[in-house]
Amino acid sequence: MTELPVAAVDRIIRKAGAERVSEEAALALAEVLEEQGVMVAKKANEFAKHANRKTVTDADIRLAVKNK
Amino acid sequence: MTELPVAAVDRIIRKAGAERVSEEAALALAEVLEEQGVMVAKKANEFAKHANRKTVTDADIRLAVKNK
Repeated sequence: MTELPVAAVDRIIRKAGAERVSEEAALALAEVLEEQGVMVAKKANEFAKHANRKTVTDADIRLAVKNK
Repeated sequence: MTELPVAAVDRIIRKAGAERVSEEAALALAEVLEEQGVMVAKKANEFAKHANRKTVTDADIRLAVKNK
């Protein structure tokens, strides 16, 4: 089970130009995006802690994306 | 506006260990994941067309993730 709704990921695939999208395709991409999200979030959390903060901010997220 | 719900992305960041998450952080990560999703989906759509299919399948998604 992913946190990301499969219907939202289906819309992203259609936005990218797909005519039709299998249910499994949307689920597969939801899983990939969630994994990538967890990886970025773990780094962002490290950066927040490094700055002595308990709150993860958008600056932490941006730094984490830059330092993948 | 992202297709991905900010609340779902907030849960992903908490799952990754964050105690607190700013609204902007969840929005920033939602935007990043959506961009990555569109990039993967565009490639997946190319691969589906290459195989003479109109339907994007999970195999197309997996091939697209491998060939980023």
